[in-house]
Amino acid sequence: MKVELQRKIEDLHARYAHALDDDRLEEWPGFFTENGVYRIATAENEARGLPLPVVYCEGRAMLRDRVQSLRHANIYEPQRYRHIVSSVLVQRINDSLVSSKANFLVVRTMENGESTLFASGRYVDRILLGEMLYEERVVICDSRRFDTLLAIPL
Amino acid sequence: MKVELQRKIEDLHARYAHALDDDRLEEWPGFFTENGVYRIATAENEARGLPLPVVYCEGRAMLRDRVQSLRHANIYEPQRYRHIVSSVLVQRINDSLVSSKANFLVVRTMENGESTLFASGRYVDRILLGEMLYEERVVICDSRRFDTLLAIPL
Amino acid sequence: MKVELQRKIEDLHARYAHALDDDRLEEWPGFFTENGVYRIATAENEARGLPLPVVYCEGRAMLRDRVQSLRHANIYEPQRYRHIVSSVLVQRINDSLVSSKANFLVVRTMENGESTLFASGRYVDRILLGEMLYEERVVICDSRRFDTLLAIPL
Repeated sequence: MKVELQRKIEDLHARYAHALDDDRLEEWPGFFTENGVYRIATAENEARGLPLPVVYCEGRAMLRDRVQSLRHANIYEPQRYRHIVSSVLVQRINDSLVSSKANFLVVRTMENGESTLFASGRYVDRILLGEMLYEERVVICDSRRFDTLLAIPL
Repeated sequence: MKVELQRKIEDLHARYAHALDDDRLEEWPGFFTENGVYRIATAENEARGLPLPVVYCEGRAMLRDRVQSLRHANIYEPQRYRHIVSSVLVQRINDSLVSSKANFLVVRTMENGESTLFASGRYVDRILLGEMLYEERVVICDSRRFDTLLAIPL
Repeated sequence: MKVELQRKIEDLHARYAHALDDDRLEEWPGFFTENGVYRIATAENEARGLPLPVVYCEGRAMLRDRVQSLRHANIYEPQRYRHIVSSVLVQRINDSLVSSKANFLVVRTMENGESTLFASGRYVDRILLGEMLYEERVVICDSRRFDTLLAIPL
């Protein structure tokens, strides 16, 4: 049933957003399949077909490592994210997989209270039905400016 | 039915947003139950467990008073809000109540045409089913900067 | 069925947003009925009842002309849009028509990587059911500042 599928995908995206925005980073790897891929790219490189991701993680172990280093390195200034996600398009690939495309925008708030439009772009996802996990989540950012972008996952 | 419940909650949030953005402030108290609570807090205070809301209103009478003073005091520069709401998560509390969590962002446009990202954060709500009214709406802002934040309800 | 109707309208808005954000401008006229109207106005003029649209197109032929001149004039700096759409309210007009109101925000990214909040406002639409096409899409911008607003459709 198409309405129900749409709701499930939007619910997954929403839970992902709140986990990051609530600083529950340890839950982040659990949104992916065991060998799931997380990749950040720029629209410019994607359009040119350049396979140069800004970030590339494959598998939960690597995602967990990433969270660990974020927690312990602590080289970045305290900050908070707010994800806004919209325009979710869903397409069935087969019985167990769907693809999803969505627009996003992230507002970043620093400890001094300054809020800025931090990133915008689109999520291009492949999602495993049943368990509702990302088999692949590609974050394609509109801008190639990436100052401290790598601090928290998008 | 879960899909239907989700739609109803998102519809309530959407009607609330349009009422404020259309400057129909007089309708605002009607989105709450008779003793409904409206509270604005900062993420910082919420995280520290400090019970210091920036704004606290309890009951429709108090909400109506607030609208009255906004209409008559007129101490603030003319401005317009635009609410963007996404990532709505809904959970049943019991037969008549649900809780909802959503991300929001407000763009403010001044009379001279200047538009800025005014506020971002999350709504944490308790909603009475049937009548579809807020029993409690907590607006948790990411930033603690609140210049003229109190002008229009968020 | 109300849930299904809501999904269809949100799906239309989402496909429209992705077509523009992916620079598939040639598909844009196809979102409208043969005589469909596309209009950009400012909230200020709408509130005053001034019938002075910033942009007015009637019919697919005129929309195609607009795309042609955008493609060939090329007087504007390369840029990318990102649409965020939320708070979609749907109302049936009759058996074949619905009206829809939605909030939007557009982030614009220039070639040098600079991203700004470009426009915000609301879509006020009349949509033909069955074919799911805009009979009328009115884009009411919060700000009356319109620098290079006319570059890409909103």
